[in-house]
Parts: sequence; structure tokens; C-alpha cells
Amino acid sequence: MKLIVLHGPNLGRLGQREPGVYGSGTLAQINERLQELGAELDVELECRQSDVEGELVGWIGQAAAEGFSGILINPAAYTHTSVALRDALSGAGIPAVEVHLSNTHAREAFRHNSLTVPVCVGQVLGFGAESYAIGLRGLLSHLRSTQQV
Amino acid sequence: MKLIVLHGPNLGRLGQREPGVYGSGTLAQINERLQELGAELDVELECRQSDVEGELVGWIGQAAAEGFSGILINPAAYTHTSVALRDALSGAGIPAVEVHLSNTHAREAFRHNSLTVPVCVGQVLGFGAESYAIGLRGLLSHLRSTQQV
Amino acid sequence: MKLIVLHGPNLGRLGQREPGVYGSGTLAQINERLQELGAELDVELECRQSDVEGELVGWIGQAAAEGFSGILINPAAYTHTSVALRDALSGAGIPAVEVHLSNTHAREAFRHNSLTVPVCVGQVLGFGAESYAIGLRGLLSHLRSTQQV
Amino acid sequence: MKLIVLHGPNLGRLGQREPGVYGSGTLAQINERLQELGAELDVELECRQSDVEGELVGWIGQAAAEGFSGILINPAAYTHTSVALRDALSGAGIPAVEVHLSNTHAREAFRHNSLTVPVCVGQVLGFGAESYAIGLRGLLSHLRSTQQV
Amino acid sequence: MKLIVLHGPNLGRLGQREPGVYGSGTLAQINERLQELGAELDVELECRQSDVEGELVGWIGQAAAEGFSGILINPAAYTHTSVALRDALSGAGIPAVEVHLSNTHAREAFRHNSLTVPVCVGQVLGFGAESYAIGLRGLLSHLRSTQQV
Amino acid sequence: MKLIVLHGPNLGRLGQREPGVYGSGTLAQINERLQELGAELDVELECRQSDVEGELVGWIGQAAAEGFSGILINPAAYTHTSVALRDALSGAGIPAVEVHLSNTHAREAFRHNSLTVPVCVGQVLGFGAESYAIGLRGLLSHLRSTQQV
Amino acid sequence: MKLIVLHGPNLGRLGQREPGVYGSGTLAQINERLQELGAELDVELECRQSDVEGELVGWIGQAAAEGFSGILINPAAYTHTSVALRDALSGAGIPAVEVHLSNTHAREAFRHNSLTVPVCVGQVLGFGAESYAIGLRGLLSHLRSTQQV
Amino acid sequence: MKLIVLHGPNLGRLGQREPGVYGSGTLAQINERLQELGAELDVELECRQSDVEGELVGWIGQAAAEGFSGILINPAAYTHTSVALRDALSGAGIPAVEVHLSNTHAREAFRHNSLTVPVCVGQVLGFGAESYAIGLRGLLSHLRSTQQV
Amino acid sequence: MKLIVLHGPNLGRLGQREPGVYGSGTLAQINERLQELGAELDVELECRQSDVEGELVGWIGQAAAEGFSGILINPAAYTHTSVALRDALSGAGIPAVEVHLSNTHAREAFRHNSLTVPVCVGQVLGFGAESYAIGLRGLLSHLRSTQQV
Amino acid sequence: MKLIVLHGPNLGRLGQREPGVYGSGTLAQINERLQELGAELDVELECRQSDVEGELVGWIGQAAAEGFSGILINPAAYTHTSVALRDALSGAGIPAVEVHLSNTHAREAFRHNSLTVPVCVGQVLGFGAESYAIGLRGLLSHLRSTQQV
Amino acid sequence: MKLIVLHGPNLGRLGQREPGVYGSGTLAQINERLQELGAELDVELECRQSDVEGELVGWIGQAAAEGFSGILINPAAYTHTSVALRDALSGAGIPAVEVHLSNTHAREAFRHNSLTVPVCVGQVLGFGAESYAIGLRGLLSHLRSTQQV
Amino acid sequence: MKLIVLHGPNLGRLGQREPGVYGSGTLAQINERLQELGAELDVELECRQSDVEGELVGWIGQAAAEGFSGILINPAAYTHTSVALRDALSGAGIPAVEVHLSNTHAREAFRHNSLTVPVCVGQVLGFGAESYAIGLRGLLSHLRSTQQV
Repeated sequence: MKLIVLHGPNLGRLGQREPGVYGSGTLAQINERLQELGAELDVELECRQSDVEGELVGWIGQAAAEGFSGILINPAAYTHTSVALRDALSGAGIPAVEVHLSNTHAREAFRHNSLTVPVCVGQVLGFGAESYAIGLRGLLSHLRSTQQV
Repeated sequence: MKLIVLHGPNLGRLGQREPGVYGSGTLAQINERLQELGAELDVELECRQSDVEGELVGWIGQAAAEGFSGILINPAAYTHTSVALRDALSGAGIPAVEVHLSNTHAREAFRHNSLTVPVCVGQVLGFGAESYAIGLRGLLSHLRSTQQV
Repeated sequence: MKLIVLHGPNLGRLGQREPGVYGSGTLAQINERLQELGAELDVELECRQSDVEGELVGWIGQAAAEGFSGILINPAAYTHTSVALRDALSGAGIPAVEVHLSNTHAREAFRHNSLTVPVCVGQVLGFGAESYAIGLRGLLSHLRSTQQV
Repeated sequence: MKLIVLHGPNLGRLGQREPGVYGSGTLAQINERLQELGAELDVELECRQSDVEGELVGWIGQAAAEGFSGILINPAAYTHTSVALRDALSGAGIPAVEVHLSNTHAREAFRHNSLTVPVCVGQVLGFGAESYAIGLRGLLSHLRSTQQV
Repeated sequence: MKLIVLHGPNLGRLGQREPGVYGSGTLAQINERLQELGAELDVELECRQSDVEGELVGWIGQAAAEGFSGILINPAAYTHTSVALRDALSGAGIPAVEVHLSNTHAREAFRHNSLTVPVCVGQVLGFGAESYAIGLRGLLSHLRSTQQV
Repeated sequence: MKLIVLHGPNLGRLGQREPGVYGSGTLAQINERLQELGAELDVELECRQSDVEGELVGWIGQAAAEGFSGILINPAAYTHTSVALRDALSGAGIPAVEVHLSNTHAREAFRHNSLTVPVCVGQVLGFGAESYAIGLRGLLSHLRSTQQV
Repeated sequence: MKLIVLHGPNLGRLGQREPGVYGSGTLAQINERLQELGAELDVELECRQSDVEGELVGWIGQAAAEGFSGILINPAAYTHTSVALRDALSGAGIPAVEVHLSNTHAREAFRHNSLTVPVCVGQVLGFGAESYAIGLRGLLSHLRSTQQV
Repeated sequence: MKLIVLHGPNLGRLGQREPGVYGSGTLAQINERLQELGAELDVELECRQSDVEGELVGWIGQAAAEGFSGILINPAAYTHTSVALRDALSGAGIPAVEVHLSNTHAREAFRHNSLTVPVCVGQVLGFGAESYAIGLRGLLSHLRSTQQV
Repeated sequence: MKLIVLHGPNLGRLGQREPGVYGSGTLAQINERLQELGAELDVELECRQSDVEGELVGWIGQAAAEGFSGILINPAAYTHTSVALRDALSGAGIPAVEVHLSNTHAREAFRHNSLTVPVCVGQVLGFGAESYAIGLRGLLSHLRSTQQV
Repeated sequence: MKLIVLHGPNLGRLGQREPGVYGSGTLAQINERLQELGAELDVELECRQSDVEGELVGWIGQAAAEGFSGILINPAAYTHTSVALRDALSGAGIPAVEVHLSNTHAREAFRHNSLTVPVCVGQVLGFGAESYAIGLRGLLSHLRSTQQV
Repeated sequence: MKLIVLHGPNLGRLGQREPGVYGSGTLAQINERLQELGAELDVELECRQSDVEGELVGWIGQAAAEGFSGILINPAAYTHTSVALRDALSGAGIPAVEVHLSNTHAREAFRHNSLTVPVCVGQVLGFGAESYAIGLRGLLSHLRSTQQV
Repeated sequence: MKLIVLHGPNLGRLGQREPGVYGSGTLAQINERLQELGAELDVELECRQSDVEGELVGWIGQAAAEGFSGILINPAAYTHTSVALRDALSGAGIPAVEVHLSNTHAREAFRHNSLTVPVCVGQVLGFGAESYAIGLRGLLSHLRSTQQV
């Protein structure tokens, strides 16, 4: 099984950018940690990052055709503003799980709504870099339970 | 007379994506149908699609300079979120008509407002792929009536 | 095939009333233009106008029983205030298309919502008197495509 | 390390109650699954359920004094209405993680806000019974990382 | 000292686009005027324009690493819709000043809020092309006063 | 004792119109059922239906003068939009009871408020055609208890 | 000079209906008082009342053609709900003055807005039956001052 | 057939508490009256009252298992605040009818919404103690009509 | 009988200030016109103007003690913001009438509400300087009718 | 004279729980301090605490029957969510005073409204444990002044 | 210790003005009562009243410089509208306590918010003239407890 | 050229009042700095401060008559609440520029709107005392560019 991991805007600068909010690990370290966990859980991962909403939309639209079975996505700022990402996820044909590093509900009011989560399987937030690992387990659990049916 | 037809985000995957909502025709088929109608109505059409808001903004900004007399646009998800597209359309110097495949007012509440329609001539929605053909007639009717004056 | 065309309140005075907003053509001219297009498209049309919400409700309720296959309606001011018209359209048993002369979204905020469009097939607005002709094509296209299925 | 698992109102009837929304497993099965995972992750768990807001408040208030190091809580309906639970969690002196069986953001609007999540470490939702297991890993990861500091 | 000047969407077409609202000067002229003022105030400027939100995000993210000490930005339409730009500015590590050509508060209601200004030092708006020059003075004054401390 | 039963817009087409929502009985059947119950409860009933808001207003205004002691009304769509009906009921000089076939609170948000119920004695909703019979009992119970005082 | 006086819904029952709110005079007495004042001020008046929104719309639409120079209207309940009346008044081609018997701003919140007053010359409210007489003076003053220009 | 009658908070003090709003009868008298009507309609009733939201939740959750076929409930204050009661009713597996003594829509704004009615069959309100009797008839009518189908 | 006429902020500059909105007459001319009408209607008038909210509050508070029987007030901008003026008027012990030169409901949204009108007898607006004369007649009519009772 | 002092949810853990917000004194200390003041002011006090909304409702409902003349209550979190407490207080038949330790208006927005204060005599907030003492004086002053009348 | 007592707009007319709401005592009597309590509690008081927002702002701004240690203020109507008073209090450098004669939360909705209380120590309301005495005790208690620290 | 500089409420205490928010400079120092810059830019300045809204209104109303060509104003708290200042500025006949010391958009929500900026040329905020100097340049630039036209 092959999954795609998508990192949204500003996440390429993790570690330098507001470590008090987002932690001091870099995106490379998160991806490495995910690859190890993927190996452990017997799933192949491909990680991509983009600051461009439309590029993320494109990757989601092509994911199924590229052979991916699921999407692990941190839409970052686009969580709160992007109907385009929502439409992409809802039409992707494969399930997605949304993750956030910080507890978005403990921050500014405009971060409390998510346009994307209603078309995802579920959401994991607030555990820092560990949110990805936890979200990956959730996505796999969902894929395995729905494949049994 | 030369018109530009712009398709917004996720429309490149028409036919595969949620056919219950958007119909089973592909974007290529819509463009073909439009080219035939264009030929019948004696107008040249150029069709482009992009998932990237800024690329659509750029195409609109240059349309008049490229010799287009009008814009037929389905802004898709950007309809509801893009002030940038609105500014581009309002500053384009040529008229635009907005079309939608689905009846957006019969869907989620966030699809009921359109940031772009107030700076367009008019809007056609809910007729599936036929919305483009109908919108094209509206755009031409507008262009011909305003040229007589 | 026989269709009913319904004009809502104040439309009987088209041409005299605020020509800057609604154009200078009269309702008789719009009906004439529609009859010609109907003949061309091989469909019979019957046009009625009323200022009374309840009379429009009654006409819609009886339309199917009177042998009409679809409704082309400009609910005018009742678009924004009439749950009764919405209920009538949603229970009519035949499809309806909503049209507006002006671009209602470029006017006062209370004209931006439509109570009736969610129970119609689609909507055409902003093309002046031509909105009716365009809407008629949309209604026919819908009727013909759904009859093939 | 000893953790407390709290199940809110109506969760005692899991399995019988709306299985389309909440799954067909019973609360006993969820607790069993958690005990197994707890054993695997080397942590002791105590599971309690109550329909009474004030009883949950009381358990949270005494958890630290009873020797628990963290709280895994599904506040169910009280998520959306209980300032008392929020105050209890915020004054508990030990970290909490909030979990939900269903994707609350894909349901009625009144389920989209959570009064309790802003005073929790994080939130896991949408994975059915697996949400608890995933949330437990998150809580442990948080406890272990903060204890290292 | 080296500063970066960022122009958001549609600003590449200044002079042609709605001169009644935005003035008749071109972006090239604004940049030239800024370069002269920069020379006078002993600061080096680099000016960039993009219609693509994600490209602006990227430039802001890399500005500090590229040796810039501050950002002068006209986010144009993205002012009102872009959490991504806000996150970029708030994580940039260098101060930013927001400028607008028009008095946005005297225009449509959706232009009255700014997602970006709360993470900037300050804002200058309504002086046409002169807003940039004035904003540049403000940014320099801020940089010089904070460097003294 | 003589009571007036008023049926609002679209109710003349009960049975044909959306039977899934409103049931398959006709208005004639409802009236017949009410006449039987009226006979049983020793009260005379007169039933009228109108699609026209102003005609309903007129009937309510004259009801007391025509010798009616109470009003049983299903204002249908006008429930949610008609201040005129509210004013008529509040000035009628005799008590009214409001009934609805469907559970309006389980439908669209615009059906959740009632402009008329605050000036009625009470409300019965959700029991299909039986709502009228139940409402009639409520109206009679109110009339008899207030006449004893 | 000939003016039309229009009374909206429920006003035909003045005197009987809620005298605590609307006073104990009848509509006939109000019309008589207006005729006397009209004679004194040298203006001919024609008074009409209707409970039907669409009938009021029709009278307004034909008023100019019937030779009236101005409209004195108490739209009663339709003040707060009728876009149709607003459109009629705004397209009437002659000025209108809105009057109310009661101080609508001291009553329920839904009576605080008026859809019709923005397209009238002015408004008089709160003086009971005298509101008409005062409004008539205002209408005449407006007509005479604009005719001098 | 056996039905459960549930009285919510503060209803145990009926008769003493605000008799102007809730009437002067006691809860015991209401229950007695219901038992008589139950006997007449050939249905067994069990009446319970609790001030504790969670206790009501528990009773509803167990009602089907205890052999009840339907629920007659006056949730009193919890009508407006309790998602927990709503969830209990929606998962009860047997139909419920909501009743209120007073006309809640004629009281404070926070009493106009009901969280529970959308998951009930219907609602009866405003008839004082008689609301229970009327609601019981509605519940029975519903149970009998759905059992025939 | 002696009445006080109060002019609110900015009204001292009438004639110079925005004559398109407020007319070209000066405050002195309005006061003169009122004195003439007062003489004609047999009532003594004293006119005062202040830009200071608290000074207006003071004048209203002392008016009854100074022997005035009523207040004719144009609160101008304070209409929309001053709870202090409202409290003063509501505690004045003598009736007040509110007047406005312009049709405030045809202007910006923040001018549509009036904090003061609910504690006045009535309101006159939109007739330019004539609003005062009309309002004076309304105030006198109110004073005379209530003195007869 | 005998008064009841009621402490709402989470107040049993005062001193341990968020001392920065609520102070470091315990509930026992507050009660002791109140007993001393009660003795000084010649009034008997009984203090109770509960985390359960329904238990507080029950205590309030029985207070008058138990011989209490007034209620001093800190509803804590239930202040903002409990219609049941409001109904209990409004039907208690004896006056209540509401107190809060913290200045709730300087905290989260959801703490700014109080459902209970409109049915109390008054409110004291922000003085820490001293709020109770101050509130007790207010309650006594109210009881003594109303008993004189 | 010297404290300043500030009375806001309309309070100079206490006793004459709406005694049903504000009581029949005069401001002089309140001040006298406060002076007696001040003497008893060993604190010097200076009482001032103004209807002018800016004058109150000025007194607050100078209070610390004039040697006052705290402010007891009834901002009356300015409570709900004055950001200027809030800014003055927040910058005063000495603590303030807000008092109200009436229970503002039991009155009109616009009296439910207070702009000033978030920058005060606390608030006392609803005890009539006694609110001042109670508030004075609160202010002293706060001053004495913070001086010990 | 002569300009007037207006400082709103609480600004007379700059330096003492919340230096963390507003800086430690005094108003005298700001005025001095402005006089120096005025001399440099060849413009005469007169600086005034008032805490009284109505006094500021008066100064603005008379500014043109006193020979001033423009207004530089920091309305401070009145920015957010004063329609009277807005009306004064909009009727002043000379242009105004609004300045703020702090970044009001990074503070409380009620500071995010400005009633005055829509009738000013532009706005400068967030640069501390330097905001005035920057705003002065903007005002001069505006005056000089419009005088050339």
C-alpha cells in the first residue's frame, strides 16, 4: 500500500518559524520519522510540500491515478480558507486524514473552522510533530477496516 | 470575435470527480461542444484550465491585451473565496459571464455567495455542461447589444 | 411540449419602470420574443403575469394538471421573500428555471438570496430581456436530457 | 503510569444506539481494546462512564489526587454545551486528550464547536472506536515528551 | 540595509486597471519612485510582484535568509482572504509594513478586514502610489528605533 | 359553538404534493375527518383554504363578527414570513391554535421560526393530518377552560 | 393636484382591533379627517385599503398613469416584509411618504426595519391617526418644493 | 402498550412555582389526569420526574429495553440547552413526543429554539396541563398509524 | 405652552455642510421658520444647539423644571450612538418628538437604528428643514390630545 | 433569618484549581469567613456545594419550604449555560444574589453572558473570596429594605 | 486613604427620574450615605458628577496625580458606549470598581454589555443606592489586600 | 499652508498612560517633533487636544473657516464610537488623515472598525509617535497632488 503525505503552506520552514507554536523539528525530520513508522507499519509513503493552493489541489486530484490509496494532509492555513482543497479532497476517490501540529482550537477564532475536515475521514490535532504519526495510524486503521468490508 | 473560456480548480478532472454532482462528461467534451457552438455562432474560442488562483488572475488580466472581447468563466471553488479573481474581472476591461455546472444554491451554505458575480454581466447555473453553452449565448447577446450602442 | 412562463410582481410595468435597471422593453415584447423562440425550438408557451403571490402559487400548483411540462419563472421581488412560492415550485411535479433581468447580486444585499432557486433546476440572471430566452434554452435542454433517461 | 478514561453521556449504550453513526461495537469492547493497548504501551487504565455532567466534573477534579497522570475523554454531547467540564479540565492539573467516535464536523452545525478542546492537549476524531486507541497514543506521547523536559 | 518590496495580485496591471480607484501610474513607476527614495534614505530595495498567493508566501519565508531586514507589502486582494500570507508574515522573523493604494475602508465591506495587518508593524492606506513611500519611511523608522534598543 | 378552520397556501393540493413530507391524504379528507370529530365534540366547523395571504388576513379579521369563537389555522409557508397574518391573529379578538402537518423543526432552518405562534394559544406539529384533530382538541380545551373563568 | 392614500393589511378593522396600540378611531374617520385637511390644503385625495400585497402593488404601479402626483401610504405589516411594495414604490415615478400609527421602534424587533422607507421621501410615525395628517403635509411640502425647482 | 412519561427540571414544584406562567395544578394532578386518559385510550403509563439531565438521559436510553413503546416528554429547561437529551432521544429506538405547558415562543428568545424537537415525532405546546393529554393522543396516533404500516 | 427645540452635533454648520444631503438653509433660518409656525400655532419655542452630548443631556434633564411642556429634538449623529440621550429623554417627564432632515434609512446602515426613538412619542424624517415644522405639529397634536384625556 | 449559600461546579476544589484565576483560599475558608460575617450581621447561613446542575436546581426549589429567606449563589460554569437554574431561581419565591470570584467580563467571551442574573436581585463579581461577603451584605440590605415595605 | 466617586450622565437627577427603575433617593443622599460609610471605614471620599463623557475621562486621567488611591464609578449610560472611559480607566494607574443602581442584565439588551468592566477590579449591580456602599467595601477590600502584597 | 492637528481623548496623558501600548513620549514631545517636521516641509501647524467629543466636532467644523487646509487627527477612542466626528469630518470641506499610535488591528475586536476612516483620505497606524510624522507627509502629498489638478 502506498500513501501520499501532503504538507501545506509555510510548512517548508518548520523549525525556523515560530518554534513556540509549531515545535523545533524540521519538515525533513517529520518526513523521516514518518518513513520509519511507515516501514514499521508496512506502508510506502511519499511526502510533498507546497505553498501553492492549486499545486496541492493538483496533487490530490491525481493521487488515485498515481496509485495512492490514501492521503495524510496538513493543509495548514488553507484549512480555513480553501474551498478548492475541499473540493479536491471530496472528489479524490480515496480517503484522507487531516492533521495539525498545534491545537488550532486554542488559537485565533479564524482557526476554529475547517473547510476540509468534513470531507475527510477524521482529524488529529495538537500533538506537534507526533500528530502526523498518530494520523497515519488512523488512516491505516480506516483503510484496513474498510477493505475488510 | 475571439472569446476566452476559463475553467477553475478541479475542473480538469471532470467526469472522474463526483459525477453525481458534476455530470459524467469530461472537460475535453465540454470544450469540444463549445467549439462547435462557437463555430455555429461565428465566434472563436480559446479554452484554458488552471487549479492556481494566481494563474487565472493573470490570464484575466492579459485577456484584453491578447485580443479577447469577452470572458466565459467557471471559477469553481474560487467563486466563493477569491477577492483576487473579483479584482481581476472587475479590472479586465472586457465583460465576463459566470457559469456553474451545479445549482450552487441547492448545496452547502458556503456555496451560496459569489464574490465574482457582482462584477460580471450575469450568471448561469444548474444546467450541467449545458451551462457553458447557455452562458456563451448570454455573453454574445450582451456583447452584440452593447456594440450596437 | 407546452411550457408555462410566469412573470412576478411589478413586471407588468416593464419599460415604464426604472429602465436603467430593467431595460426599456415591455413585457409584451418579451413575450413576443419568447413565442418566436418557442416556435423555433418547437415548444408551445403560455405567458402569465401577476402581482399577487397567491395567484402565482395557484398557477404553479395547477401547471402539471393543465398539461405543462416545465415552468420558466421570474419571481421578481418574491424571489427574496416567498416561502409559499418555493413550496409551490418544490411540489409542482415539473421542473422550473428561474430568470432575472438584472444582476441581482450587484444590487442591494437583500436581493442576494433566493428562496426559490434551491428548488429549481437552475438560474439565469443579468442579461436583461435576453435572460428569458437563455433560460428557456436551459429549461428545454434539461427537459430533453432527462426525458432521454 | 496510570491514566483515566472517561466516557460521557449516552456512551453506555454504544452498539445499540445509532450504529450507522457510532459503530456497532459496545463500550465494553472499546474498554477491552484499550486495556490491551495499555498493556502493550505499559500504562494502566481505569475506564468510567457517566450520563451526569456533574459526576464527570467530579471525577476530573479528583483525578490528579487519585494518582492519574492524564485524562482520555470523550465528552460526547457535553463537548458542545458544558462550561463546567471545560473548567474541570482546565483546573485538573494533568493533561487531557479529547476523542470522538464520529467526525463531528461532518454533522449538525451545533457539533462543530467544542468548549472543551481549547483546554486539552489535542483532539482525535472520526476513526470510530479506533479514535480512543489513537488518542491514547497521543496522550502518552505528550506525557513522555513533557516529562523529558 | 536591504528591504524587500512585495506587490500582490493584479498589481502588475496598475495604470491600465480601474485608474479611478488605483491611480494611473504603473507598477514600474512606483518601483522607480521607491528606488529613488531608497537611495535618498540609504536603503537598498528589491521589488517583486506575483499573482500567486503561494509564491508570495515563499518569498516572505525566505526573505530573512536572503538577507532582507524588513518587508514592505501590498497584499492587495489577499489582504482579506489569506491566512497563508498572515502565517508567512508572522513567521518571517523580520518586521513588515502593509500598504494599500486605495482607502479600503471606504469601499466594499469585505475590504474592511485585514488578515495580515495584525502581524505587521503598521499600515498605511489611501494615499495612492504615495502609500508605498510613506510606508517605507514607517518601516525604516521602526527598524532604526528597534535597532537602537 | 362555531369554529373556523383555515388552510394556508399550497394546502389545496395536499395528496398530490410531496406526499413523503405532507402525507397522501387530501384536504377534503382532512376536512371530513375534522367535521366528524367536530360532531363528536359538539362544535360546528367551517373550513376554508386560500393561497392568498391577504384573503386569509381578511377571513381572520371578520371571524369574530361572523360568529366564530376560535380559529384553527395551518398558515403553511406564511408561518415564516407573514407579519400581516400575525397582526390579523393578534387583533382577531378570538383565540387561535396553529397546526402543522410536518415537524417543521426537522426541516430547513427558515422553517424553524414562526411569526404567528407567539400570538396564538398554542401549537401542534408533526402528526400529519392528525395534527388538525389534536389541535382542535387543544383549542376546545382552551375555550372551555377560559369560559369557566 | 390629486394624491392617492393607501392603507395596508388589517387597517380596514381599525377601531375594533387592538385599540391600545392603534387607537379607537375607524379608518372611515381617518379618511374623513384627511379629506377635510385635503380641502383645506387644496389637494384632492383618493383613499383605498387592501389586505392583498399584490393589489397594493398594482395600485402603486398605476397611480401615475391615473393622474396622481404623490402617494401617502401606511404599508402596515408589509412595511417589514414586502420587497414587492418597495419595488413598486421605487418604480412608481411619483414620490411617496410612509406613515405609521404606532411608534414601530418601541415595539417588537421585527418592526424596526422598513423595506419601503428607503425608496420614500420620508416617514412619519407614532402620532396615531394624526400621523396621516402630518405625513400629508410633508408630502405636499415635498411636492411643492420640488415643483419650484 | 406501555408508554413512559418524563418530566424535566423544576416540574416537581408545579403549582407552587410561577402559577401565572405554568398554571396552578400540581404534577401529581397532571399524572392522575394522564392515567385516566391512558385507561380510556387503553395504554399503560409510567410517570417519572428528574431535575438531573443525566438521569433523564439514562431513563430514555433504557426505555425500549424496559418495554416502553413510546416517550411523552416535557424536557422543560433542558429543551433549550441539552444536546445530551437530544442524542438520547435520537438513539432511543422508540418515538417521542415533546410537550410544553406554556407557549415557549411567546416568552424569552432563548426559549424559541428546541434542541430536542427535531428528533421527536412532533410537539404540542401552550395548552397548560392539557398539553400532556393532547400530546399523548398524538403519540398514540403516531404509534398506531406506523404499526399498521 | 412653552416647548424646547434641541439641535444636536454639527447642526450649527447647516447650509455650509454637505448641502446635497442636508439642504442649503442655515440653522438660523430653521429656527426663524419654527418661531413663525410657533406663533401661528400659539406656542412659545426656545431653540438651542450643542455639539456636546452631555450638554444636550443636561438641557433635557432640566427642561421640565424650566417649564417646558415638550421637546422637539434632532439628535443628529447621537441618534445612533447615545444611550445617555435615550436615558435623558426617557427620564425627562415630558414628551419628545425626534426629527431628521435626511431620510436616514436611505443612507449608511449605521444610520438605520435609533437609540432615542423608542422613548419618544414619534419620529419625522426626510423632509429637509420642513421635518421640524411637521414634527412640531405632531408634538402639539400629541400634547393637546393627551391633555384632553 | 436563615439564608442558603450555594456553590456551583468545580468550587469544591478551590485553592488547588487555577489559583491565579480563583485565588488560593479553599471553599472551607470561604464558608468560615461567611459564617463569621453572618454571626456579625445576625443571620444564620447554610452552605452547600454541588457539581450537579440538577442537585442545585433541587436545593433552590426547596429552599423556601426549608425556611430560608434568601439565596446567595455562585453558579460558576452553570451561570453561562443553565436555563434550568434560571427557572429554579425565578420560581424560588425568595430573592437571590449572584456572586463570582473572578471578573468574568475580563475573561473568555462565553463568560460574559449570565442566564441567571436577570432573575436575581443583583450581582457582585471580581473581588475574589470577598465577593461572597459583599454579596451577602447586598442580599441582606435587599431583604431588610423590602421587608420594611 | 482618599478615593474618588464618579457619577455618570443623568445621575444628577436621581430621585426625580424614573423612580421605579432607579429608586427615589437623590444623588445628594447617596453621597451623604457614602461619606458616613467612608468615615466608618476610615477613608476620605470626594464625589463628582458629570453628564459629559470627556469630563469624566479627564477626572479619571488626573485622579492618581490628585492623590486618589481608587475609583468608585457608576458610568451609567456610558458603560455601554464609551471606549474613551474604558481607555481612561485602563490607563488610570489606580484600581476602579463599577457600580450600577439597577440590574442592567434584567433590562434592554444594549445594557447587557459593559465596555468598562473588563478594565475594572469588579462590579456590583442591582442593589439600588446600596450598590455604592457595597462597591466601596469591595474597592477597599481590594486595595487593602493588594497593599499587603 | 496651515494645518490643524487634533488629538482625541486620553492623549493628553501620553507617556504616563500604558507606555507598553502607546510609548513613553509625551504629547508635548509629539507636537514639538511635528512642528520641526512642519518647518522642514514648509507648513504651519496648530495642535489641540480634547477629551470632549463635542469640542473636537466643533474644531473640525470651524477649521476651514479658520483658514486651515487640512486635518491630521488621532481620534483615539472616538474612532470606534463617534458618528458625530465622522459627520464633522465628512462635512469639513477640507481633507483629513487619520493616525493611530498603536496597531489597532492587533488589539481588542472593538478597535478593528473605524467610523471615521471612510471619510478621511487615508490612515496611518502602528508606528508609535512616528505615525503622526508619516501621516503629515501623507496629508501634504495629498494636498499638493490635488492642488495640481
